[in-house]
Amino acid sequence: MSQTKLKDDLARERLIDLAAEFYDQFEGGEVPEMTLPTRTKSNIEYDEESKVWKYGDRTSSRSANSVRGARKLLKAAYTIEFLARQLDEGRSSTLRELYYLSESWDSEEAHFSDQDESNQLVEDLEIVSHVTREDFHMRPEESGATLMGPLKLREQTRRGEREIHCQEDVGEGGYQIPNNPDTIEFLEHDIDFVLCVETGGMRDRLVENGFDDAYNVLVVHLKGQPARATRRITKRLHDELDVPVVVFTDGDPWSYRIFGSVAYGSIKSAHLSEYLATPEAEFIGIQPQDIVDYDLPTDPLSDSDINALQSELDDPRFMTDYWEEQIELQLDIGKKAEQQALASRGLDFVTDTYLPERLDAMGVI
Amino acid sequence: MSQTKLKDDLARERLIDLAAEFYDQFEGGEVPEMTLPTRTKSNIEYDEESKVWKYGDRTSSRSANSVRGARKLLKAAYTIEFLARQLDEGRSSTLRELYYLSESWDSEEAHFSDQDESNQLVEDLEIVSHVTREDFHMRPEESGATLMGPLKLREQTRRGEREIHCQEDVGEGGYQIPNNPDTIEFLEHDIDFVLCVETGGMRDRLVENGFDDAYNVLVVHLKGQPARATRRITKRLHDELDVPVVVFTDGDPWSYRIFGSVAYGSIKSAHLSEYLATPEAEFIGIQPQDIVDYDLPTDPLSDSDINALQSELDDPRFMTDYWEEQIELQLDIGKKAEQQALASRGLDFVTDTYLPERLDAMGVI
Repeated sequence: MSQTKLKDDLARERLIDLAAEFYDQFEGGEVPEMTLPTRTKSNIEYDEESKVWKYGDRTSSRSANSVRGARKLLKAAYTIEFLARQLDEGRSSTLRELYYLSESWDSEEAHFSDQDESNQLVEDLEIVSHVTREDFHMRPEESGATLMGPLKLREQTRRGEREIHCQEDVGEGGYQIPNNPDTIEFLEHDIDFVLCVETGGMRDRLVENGFDDAYNVLVVHLKGQPARATRRITKRLHDELDVPVVVFTDGDPWSYRIFGSVAYGSIKSAHLSEYLATPEAEFIGIQPQDIVDYDLPTDPLSDSDINALQSELDDPRFMTDYWEEQIELQLDIGKKAEQQALASRGLDFVTDTYLPERLDAMGVI
Repeated sequence: MSQTKLKDDLARERLIDLAAEFYDQFEGGEVPEMTLPTRTKSNIEYDEESKVWKYGDRTSSRSANSVRGARKLLKAAYTIEFLARQLDEGRSSTLRELYYLSESWDSEEAHFSDQDESNQLVEDLEIVSHVTREDFHMRPEESGATLMGPLKLREQTRRGEREIHCQEDVGEGGYQIPNNPDTIEFLEHDIDFVLCVETGGMRDRLVENGFDDAYNVLVVHLKGQPARATRRITKRLHDELDVPVVVFTDGDPWSYRIFGSVAYGSIKSAHLSEYLATPEAEFIGIQPQDIVDYDLPTDPLSDSDINALQSELDDPRFMTDYWEEQIELQLDIGKKAEQQALASRGLDFVTDTYLPERLDAMGVI
């Protein structure tokens, strides 16, 4: 509990420091401003040390030298006050609540005109304060997914501690990841590797076939594009338990982006890469090569699929021999396949043949 | 366990009976066919006794008197064989797996050409056999949502029984509803009413504010348009525990449809109304009247909102004085509001003021 309090106090202090900076700028006769890295594909760079993609040197600034800019800083000041009080009271809120709550602020100029504006401001505050949204106690709308496997954890809830084993103490639905997974402590485990799975249908197949039990796997359901909570817990599992992480998705460009968001983070949130990305995560499939090797049922690539693949060839995060080869192959065969297409070989093919072969080839088992 | 086995055997028998019927038709020199109710808005009727909407008398048939029709019955025969074996082996699969699995069937004529076709066939089989998809062991792709509140339940999993209290034995994320909630038995509870909530943000607000504890509420997260598993467990909670069910959504026509799917079921699955619908469920809000009474922040109605409201006025399920009044009022004011808009009055307004006032007015508390 005092650990949590300490973290809250630190986040609060950082926010107050930002407001104090505006104040000092005013007092020194300067026009207050906030400087931020430019958040575009051309301004992300690979950081050798942390092995993640971060923002480069290009910056843009929010300055009070225009009415529009001044209003932005006013909103920032109000938001900081709200967040500081929220931390003080040990409460939390969603991004959408913040947007609506601004209607209750006394200065009408400080009300947000739409939710994009308040979302963007919270991201700006994350970047300049080096505190994550979760540590401001801002909850996402999207809930995290579920875990199933040989892991016992302790979650710190508002109603006290809960010790939960992610096989023995949960139903078939698994353990629901809370909005802020940093309230979790890993107690004991028997995990050989973590398997992140895109679709619910495949997650249920693995659980039904007892794959988590047979291979000592923690199955993380990504539920499509993974929520921040899901990416965060995946990173912590890798770093704290020192186990490999493999990602199992459909075989199309949109699913490679899902892998990318687990492994490399996203351009929009490159300031969070060290917090959310698992650069050591490996892609297990469906690879374009698998479509050929296992003769899977496919659909033809659509125009938007082809565009997305070509844009991945230009994306610095996908500029590796492996990805170039696979993407070129896919453009060549003009086909994509879903992970559940493995069922065309029978319901056990994925757990008896496909995954063991791929995991063996990758050196994971 | 033997209860489950009995249910599986019954489902299996009903399926085999269907196939036997085709056989008998053949042997009697008739062209085999399958007769189904027509599934359109004009063919649903209110059943006074069960208080749900069901299909009326109009029917259409799938007959083998054309190549296309014969192929449909062939696919039905293969699917029946697959499902019967699945039940025999105590296994399960998703609709998508069934689609892909058909590629492994020896007759190429029996392969499904797309997933719409296999989905439709499974629905047809549900209707003619009077067995639900869940009892065929077909899992949905979409997972159910979560429960939080004073309820202790027992879930029958493949790995044995799990007893779980939906406050004391779960994290802040709550208890994840399994794909087939009929594996759940309710053991003990202290629930005064069930509150179904559309958005994750509001669900988290209620849990953070301890509303489930203060009012003895079971909070069911609908996660937008609710999955079958979520609707099924809501119905069972109402019927078996004899507690009121109230539904709390955004104040727009799409959210009224969410309420409708909990309370009345859907046109597409009127054959399942008795299994999935909770006709006694009441709508708590956001009502158009609340937008006026509580002066909530709003957005203007879009053209598609207006069309959807008008189509609801024509929908037999919404033809009550209450809904006509509310929908007319909304068309009149031209505005809609989200449930999280209540945050404009502060983060506790929803639990301290809005819900208690509405629940009192509805006679629930």
